[in-house]
Order: sequence, then C-alpha cells, then structure tokens
Amino acid sequence: MKLPETTEWALHSVTALAQVPGESVSARQLADHFGLPAPYLSKQLALLVRAGILFASTGPRGGFRLAQPASRLTLLDVVEAIDGAADPYVCKEIRQQGRGAAPPEECSEQCLLAEKMRQAHLAWRESLRAVVIAELVDSLGEEVAGRIRTSLMRVEG
Amino acid sequence: MKLPETTEWALHSVTALAQVPGESVSARQLADHFGLPAPYLSKQLALLVRAGILFASTGPRGGFRLAQPASRLTLLDVVEAIDGAADPYVCKEIRQQGRGAAPPEECSEQCLLAEKMRQAHLAWRESLRAVVIAELVDSLGEEVAGRIRTSLMRVEG
Repeated sequence: MKLPETTEWALHSVTALAQVPGESVSARQLADHFGLPAPYLSKQLALLVRAGILFASTGPRGGFRLAQPASRLTLLDVVEAIDGAADPYVCKEIRQQGRGAAPPEECSEQCLLAEKMRQAHLAWRESLRAVVIAELVDSLGEEVAGRIRTSLMRVEG
Repeated sequence: MKLPETTEWALHSVTALAQVPGESVSARQLADHFGLPAPYLSKQLALLVRAGILFASTGPRGGFRLAQPASRLTLLDVVEAIDGAADPYVCKEIRQQGRGAAPPEECSEQCLLAEKMRQAHLAWRESLRAVVIAELVDSLGEEVAGRIRTSLMRVEG
C-alpha cells in the first residue's frame, strides 16, 4: 500500500501557499522553492485545482492560491485530490466463488471482512480529516514562516 | 493507495482454516474452495507461513493450519504478512530541498506533515489490530460454518 510520492509535494505546496494568503504563486516559484521538477509539479497542482483546493489564475502575476481558507482545508482533502478516495482493500466476493461458494441469499450483507477493512480505511480518513492546513501553518515559528514567504514571493529576474 | 488483490485471499483463507482447528488443508483444497489459482494462492500461503500465521506440514495428509489460536490472530497480522508494514506515505524531506530549504538545525524533529500522516496510518493499524479472526468465525452461522468445513475437508478422489 503506497501513496504517490507526489502526495508530499501537494501537502507541502498547499501548506506553503497558506503562508501567503491572497497571493498567487507560479508553479515555477513553487518548484524552485522545493527543488522539484516544475512540469510534473504542475500536474499535481492541476489536480488540486480540479478538487477545488487551489485556484489558478493566468497573466503576468498569475499562479496558484488557496481556493478556501486554510482553516477549512484538511489533509484528507489534499491527499484524496492526489490519490483518489478509493478503499485500498478490494473485495471481489470470493466467498461466492469456488466449491465453498455461499449462496446469494446468504450474501445480502457485505462480507464482514470487507466491512472491517472498510472501518480501518474510515479510521485513516477520520484521522486525516481532523487536521486542517491552518494548524500546520500555526505550528511554524515566525522565522520559518518568514523564510517561506520570502522564497515564494521572490521576483524572478 | 491499493492493497494487493491477494489480501482478500489471505484473509478468507485464514478465516476458513480457523473453522477446522488442528486439521491441515492443502493449497489445492483451499484453491478449489474459493475458486482461486492454486499456484498463486500457494505463494500467499507461503507468506503467511513466513509471518508465523500458518504452519505448513508435508506428507499425504499435509497442508496448512493455523500456527496460533484464532483468538490471537488479528486482521493486521494477515494484512501485513501480505503487504508489509511500511507507512504508505513517503517523506523525502522536501522541506530541506530547493530555494526554501530549511537548515538542518530546524529539522531535528520529524516534519509535522509526515507525523500527521503517520498518525493516520497508526489509526488504520489500530483498527485492524482490534479485530481477531475468532471474532469473524464466531459471527458465522452454524450452517455456513458447516458448509465451509465440509468443502475444506472433502477428500479428493
């Protein structure tokens, strides 16, 4: 079970943008800030736009900014924008296959194994839903926050 | 984020073996019971043996049986035997990369994002650790349990 490596990129990009509220930051600026490949980072930012987490504007001062207050954006929002919301456990109903197949009338309820796996996934989701981006921003010291703002807002020559 | 499809095979195989305590069941019997490909199922059973969940014996009446009481085996044991115990979130410390890199002295503690992602993974693990195989077996009606036992213990001509 693995999340895409770009989950880290998305989480850090959203947290960084939360430090410069109202300002648009280009994919190139974000890529330089984190030392990431700009074209591939752009694809992740596009997923965040599609999920309603970022807002993209064009033009000379265009770029990306949060589409919602950081106090409303959760880690779950960001993670599922990148990876989707599917349950990692796939139930193919093998209880209804083979020599030991249960008859359909015994299978009107979900398989208990799938149900328990689902509960674990929901526990994971709840844990991520409980953390808002604003909480992460608040935990940074003023020195760190200042450095991030300076790096993000630097005007390229 | 996806668990291997064979996670379902392993969970159902262990639950089925828990219905015939002390009896050894061959990979072929289990494969026929669930309508699964025996060679590929055998590989999953070998992972369960390696994890100390199943015990394998050879000989004409050999096969697989639980290596521990079903009251001690958890869903987490089975899932991690198949998929490993790694955290699905990979932190590559991008906070220390690029133009906005944090200096090492600011990074003596784990990145807060990685820490929150880790907490979600622990919540998932706790949820699976809370369910023992015996609980699943107990939830089956006597009719279902009887059918499973009959199918598993059927002597091949």
